[in-house]
Amino acid sequence: MGEKTGVWIFGAKGGLAVTVLVGSRAIADELTSSSGLVTESEAMRRLGFVSMDDLVFGGHDVRESTVYENAYSIYKETGSIDFEILQELRERIDVINDRIRPGITINCGEAIESLADDGFILKNNTLESALAAIIADIEEFKSRNDLSRVVAVNLASTEPLIEISEIHRDLGKLRRAIKENRQDLVRASLIYAYAAIETGCSFINFTPSNAALVPALEELAAQRRVPYMGSDGKTGETLVKSALAPMFKYRNLQVLSWQGYNILGDRDGQVLSDANNREAKVKSKDQLLEKILGYPLHTHVGIDYVASLKDLKTAWDFIHFKGFMDFKMSMQFTWQGCDAILAAPLVLDMIRLAEFAMRKEEWGRMAQLSSFFKSPLGIDEHDLHFQFHALVDYIDRHVSS
Amino acid sequence: MGEKTGVWIFGAKGGLAVTVLVGSRAIADELTSSSGLVTESEAMRRLGFVSMDDLVFGGHDVRESTVYENAYSIYKETGSIDFEILQELRERIDVINDRIRPGITINCGEAIESLADDGFILKNNTLESALAAIIADIEEFKSRNDLSRVVAVNLASTEPLIEISEIHRDLGKLRRAIKENRQDLVRASLIYAYAAIETGCSFINFTPSNAALVPALEELAAQRRVPYMGSDGKTGETLVKSALAPMFKYRNLQVLSWQGYNILGDRDGQVLSDANNREAKVKSKDQLLEKILGYPLHTHVGIDYVASLKDLKTAWDFIHFKGFMDFKMSMQFTWQGCDAILAAPLVLDMIRLAEFAMRKEEWGRMAQLSSFFKSPLGIDEHDLHFQFHALVDYIDRHVSS
Amino acid sequence: MGEKTGVWIFGAKGGLAVTVLVGSRAIADELTSSSGLVTESEAMRRLGFVSMDDLVFGGHDVRESTVYENAYSIYKETGSIDFEILQELRERIDVINDRIRPGITINCGEAIESLADDGFILKNNTLESALAAIIADIEEFKSRNDLSRVVAVNLASTEPLIEISEIHRDLGKLRRAIKENRQDLVRASLIYAYAAIETGCSFINFTPSNAALVPALEELAAQRRVPYMGSDGKTGETLVKSALAPMFKYRNLQVLSWQGYNILGDRDGQVLSDANNREAKVKSKDQLLEKILGYPLHTHVGIDYVASLKDLKTAWDFIHFKGFMDFKMSMQFTWQGCDAILAAPLVLDMIRLAEFAMRKEEWGRMAQLSSFFKSPLGIDEHDLHFQFHALVDYIDRHVSS
Amino acid sequence: MGEKTGVWIFGAKGGLAVTVLVGSRAIADELTSSSGLVTESEAMRRLGFVSMDDLVFGGHDVRESTVYENAYSIYKETGSIDFEILQELRERIDVINDRIRPGITINCGEAIESLADDGFILKNNTLESALAAIIADIEEFKSRNDLSRVVAVNLASTEPLIEISEIHRDLGKLRRAIKENRQDLVRASLIYAYAAIETGCSFINFTPSNAALVPALEELAAQRRVPYMGSDGKTGETLVKSALAPMFKYRNLQVLSWQGYNILGDRDGQVLSDANNREAKVKSKDQLLEKILGYPLHTHVGIDYVASLKDLKTAWDFIHFKGFMDFKMSMQFTWQGCDAILAAPLVLDMIRLAEFAMRKEEWGRMAQLSSFFKSPLGIDEHDLHFQFHALVDYIDRHVSS
Repeated sequence: MGEKTGVWIFGAKGGLAVTVLVGSRAIADELTSSSGLVTESEAMRRLGFVSMDDLVFGGHDVRESTVYENAYSIYKETGSIDFEILQELRERIDVINDRIRPGITINCGEAIESLADDGFILKNNTLESALAAIIADIEEFKSRNDLSRVVAVNLASTEPLIEISEIHRDLGKLRRAIKENRQDLVRASLIYAYAAIETGCSFINFTPSNAALVPALEELAAQRRVPYMGSDGKTGETLVKSALAPMFKYRNLQVLSWQGYNILGDRDGQVLSDANNREAKVKSKDQLLEKILGYPLHTHVGIDYVASLKDLKTAWDFIHFKGFMDFKMSMQFTWQGCDAILAAPLVLDMIRLAEFAMRKEEWGRMAQLSSFFKSPLGIDEHDLHFQFHALVDYIDRHVSS
Repeated sequence: MGEKTGVWIFGAKGGLAVTVLVGSRAIADELTSSSGLVTESEAMRRLGFVSMDDLVFGGHDVRESTVYENAYSIYKETGSIDFEILQELRERIDVINDRIRPGITINCGEAIESLADDGFILKNNTLESALAAIIADIEEFKSRNDLSRVVAVNLASTEPLIEISEIHRDLGKLRRAIKENRQDLVRASLIYAYAAIETGCSFINFTPSNAALVPALEELAAQRRVPYMGSDGKTGETLVKSALAPMFKYRNLQVLSWQGYNILGDRDGQVLSDANNREAKVKSKDQLLEKILGYPLHTHVGIDYVASLKDLKTAWDFIHFKGFMDFKMSMQFTWQGCDAILAAPLVLDMIRLAEFAMRKEEWGRMAQLSSFFKSPLGIDEHDLHFQFHALVDYIDRHVSS
Repeated sequence: MGEKTGVWIFGAKGGLAVTVLVGSRAIADELTSSSGLVTESEAMRRLGFVSMDDLVFGGHDVRESTVYENAYSIYKETGSIDFEILQELRERIDVINDRIRPGITINCGEAIESLADDGFILKNNTLESALAAIIADIEEFKSRNDLSRVVAVNLASTEPLIEISEIHRDLGKLRRAIKENRQDLVRASLIYAYAAIETGCSFINFTPSNAALVPALEELAAQRRVPYMGSDGKTGETLVKSALAPMFKYRNLQVLSWQGYNILGDRDGQVLSDANNREAKVKSKDQLLEKILGYPLHTHVGIDYVASLKDLKTAWDFIHFKGFMDFKMSMQFTWQGCDAILAAPLVLDMIRLAEFAMRKEEWGRMAQLSSFFKSPLGIDEHDLHFQFHALVDYIDRHVSS
Repeated sequence: MGEKTGVWIFGAKGGLAVTVLVGSRAIADELTSSSGLVTESEAMRRLGFVSMDDLVFGGHDVRESTVYENAYSIYKETGSIDFEILQELRERIDVINDRIRPGITINCGEAIESLADDGFILKNNTLESALAAIIADIEEFKSRNDLSRVVAVNLASTEPLIEISEIHRDLGKLRRAIKENRQDLVRASLIYAYAAIETGCSFINFTPSNAALVPALEELAAQRRVPYMGSDGKTGETLVKSALAPMFKYRNLQVLSWQGYNILGDRDGQVLSDANNREAKVKSKDQLLEKILGYPLHTHVGIDYVASLKDLKTAWDFIHFKGFMDFKMSMQFTWQGCDAILAAPLVLDMIRLAEFAMRKEEWGRMAQLSSFFKSPLGIDEHDLHFQFHALVDYIDRHVSS
């Protein structure tokens, strides 16, 4: 066994985190294949990524339930975690509970606050004391587990968008706002990200919550020399969009309208059924078509909560386009995936790539991760093929160097 | 107006050819947009392609009906040719009839022979005399219209596959077989292609008929120094496949099964409802998935004749794949296109690119056209994105030179 | 030729009305088949309905364009009216324009008012004078064309729902409100319906606008002894729902969720993109599942405006259900219809059935028409099969009597 | 607990039988709901059907594996049998193995024979001795379990169709053929059915195998005064067809083409991938449209084996139809069900209804079961709604009597 790498997850008991925890353990113990992990493809394996066995997990959450309990619910709801595998791993998963600490819901809105358990949340804190507590938790995790490198990942529920102002563009001002306990200007994810970066963790924002990667935090990351990236994992319908839209461009077929309807029933869906929280997601899902195609077009992205589906997200997209002699034609697709199953390997791939970057002493935005995000930070290219080949190029460069 | 370029179409009265004829005329007269033409995209227009106005059309066919009559049928059947535009162009289209000569159906099988009109077919010919007649037709077309460059395109109905033997691999042997009138060894498309190449035309095989581009004809093309390419235009379902399959690779999502069902009701569909003729098409449509994904998988391509659909081809594809922890998920799409509308601009794009290649004195296989074909000659790359960028690279090279 | 029957259409220049006008003329002149008309099915023809040739059309509208112009637009937009048929009928259609009178948009909301042409609308009227003008128009139509029976049909754009109060439940109070010019309490459709019933027309409310059939108007209809029915034609997605939902009941398969998404781009869609006007429609579309299945379930009906589709309405429904051992399964369907083409024959069928009822001196609610409506007045049965057999029973009763 | 009823299943270890066994036990023990069982709907429960707890199962099969093993495979393959429920029931299910006897594959074709285990098949038998052995098994089952009534159900794999000749139309001739060991004239299902009816069991042919209910066996059933019915359970795509096709009739929308594509990966699918065995199924699935609609139309039913799907059968249907003014429109649906989950409750419903008929001393064809079959014996009505109401009428008659 090699050197251990820490993984600190904000939202460590959510469906996605639990799938990451159980899945990485199942792969390490060879109870399942490594299907879905790009870092396990032949071309990429050459780079020498950290093994699943060498990941040590911890994190924050705001619910009391155990990781096993939540994994069991997933088995019951969608079958995406196999019962026999879960039984086999039960003990090895249970130990993680001790490394999950009570989190915060500061200014996250009602939809999220209603999910929190009173007994498992940091309360009556100023921003300053909350930040200090989060930092202390991460530091303790590092020292107790003797970890030289920790990758922090934000998997918490989608927060309402925050309006970016001067406060968020200047690290000095942000610090002052924290000191002055201006809770109206921050959200939980900002405090989480601050703590992660401050303690030298690499940071990945897998959610669309924009508070987690405001410019002032990028400034902090530059000071601390940590690599980071976001935002919003590209897992299902948007992934297909970014693979398919270029085809219409290659054939000069003008897309007239692209309607997308997403239905899902997990906790994520419940939070997104609140219009405030949905805004962040829709914005992130909707922008890429115009960017890929190069002209404005009629688009729509709907997200509706359908409880019976649980985490089995279904999306229907209808694409209306114009061909030769302006004749109109159409294409439609239905995507039926399990959200956590699609997202979990991306999280693990990025953990590995972030760990690799830290090992190589790279810092700043990890542009090589653009294919994993709906809104890749600082990158205007949304064509999946270009994005993927940017990753391939990164790998090639490092293999040959 | 510039120098004229000839376009000689085998199957000049079929639905696709008629759409090419009416469409190119409508674009030249600005009665419709140039939607669907890649050579009209901003990036490519820089190259200076032949204008629609400078194309002179002629060809062979085996049916008596006029181009106008067939265009009118298309308007009635699918509306893909607009009635008012058709009326406006009627006279300019009618002149083409005089340049369409009776063709051949030698060894094409019953499905095709049953479509031919007795009064519009070269009969009682030996292979040698048929070849001579075809050549004479093309030569006359060139001299009468004072054309320095002619692009020949095979748009005739899909023939049954021919088994490639020694005869087809050696130009000398092929010539002997023609002299000995071995009709069992050739098909109409071989004679057509021979005549086109022999007379110095660039040649494009838009059909899956493999007789049209046997190695011996490639030898002839090398002698005559003409550029050529094939086979089987990539217009609908296969186009989507080649755009979408890479996505599964990029995410290491293992495709377990990919079922494709095509239903269509035009003459092409009727010919393909004959199992012999269908074989060529299915083979061409089915191979690319394994090549793109890099592993064997369960695939199926069905083609069924549904008369009521006419040329409005509908395809349903079901993709079953495996993700993280071996969880199975699925995607399905329905593609509803008009076959001729999708194919016609590809034909015109390739005519322009072939004319350009002739102007630049390039000859041999036109690898830059790979994105237009289901089975690009000599090219193993089926990923649409790579193929398209090969064309972009070709354009870039010529623009900068 | 037999006795003439008048048809007075509110919204006589809209896409649906124009399709009714052109289609009935084309059938009368045998330029097209009678496909889509239930009254032309063998079983029903026995009853002796009024022939298409004996219908005389007139109506109100608020736009200046001619019927021909609007029919031409339909040909251009969707091809659902054939160009050659339209040319052939042009003159016979043009005569209808003289029988279309300027209408009203009283209290219809901005979405509808913005469609009206200033020069073709009754302005500066009190409710009383507007009602008098509408009545005068209908009376003139009757006397000029020597019509003993007139069927009035409301095909105008969907208005916002009106809150039903005492005023609408008592004819005396309604009359007083009209006299006092209480425009806030009525909408255009109420005035239209009042005029139609007052002049002894049979009245059909094909729209979901609830102002058109308030209880006070039913009282008026009873006084005038006219037959009437509504509301909201059942043409596409809802039709399928009412045919399919019983299947789940017959198998005791519990429907967990039924999501329906409608996209359309015609004037109707534009008006419905206003949330106020949409409310009426969604309510009407959404209620029937619970009524058919007999238990509450999660449902959703979306209506989105997609301009490029014009009148080619597309709907995607996703049905999530539970079977044996509580195993979840799903069904989805995509319906691609042309709204006016689906609705027009229902309008003509109901005109015929209403004329028949008038001939038989039947009056009051026409329960036999329930299968044609999303919200059949006074009828709680939404199962299409029961509804249809109620019509069959009505026919049988009249045939045998 | 009441009087026990025997259930004898031919094909007792197949996926459907195992689902019936586990499911009925789980319902009896209240580990799952009775969803999917029509006999549990409020309207029908009034009749007093045999309770799940009072069913005693036995049967024939040709494979050695145990019921538990096969149930475990189902859990692994599709999750349609819940793991925890299975564990809980393990012992109660295991006892059934002792009541499952080695069966026969006489003249069933290679596809079926290849599934049989050498050690669990009656071999080297004449028809006469095989029949005697099957009879003896059933008699022993009855006496050992002290059963007054037994319902036999054929759930074995679909056999190739048998050509019905004089031998099959006359009980005397059939007996002679059996005596003369004319194996070419019978199939396993005929021997099974003969034995069941001979021993006084009610008999249900859930498969499309036509050998199981030849006229001579109906003659035998009349002699023995047992009720029986068949053939081919209507579970998925065909069920939807029979619910949906009437809608097109009610609106006089002419169906031009109805294409249906079924993909499935269970043992049933494997057997059906043999063209001989598929013929029976396709014929059964394809006939009903013309019968419901009342005119000939273009139809197609495809069945393809897609191993990765296991028992999760997916069907895509495309319906092309013509409306007003002959305008063409379309509808498509995708049905995603689990075959055994859909079929099992029908089997249990019919067992209950057959038991009830026996109790009432009814015999002959059970016309009241028509809604459960694709090819209901002696019934030409395929409209699901009529069929279902025939059952409702039967229930009503018996409740009121």
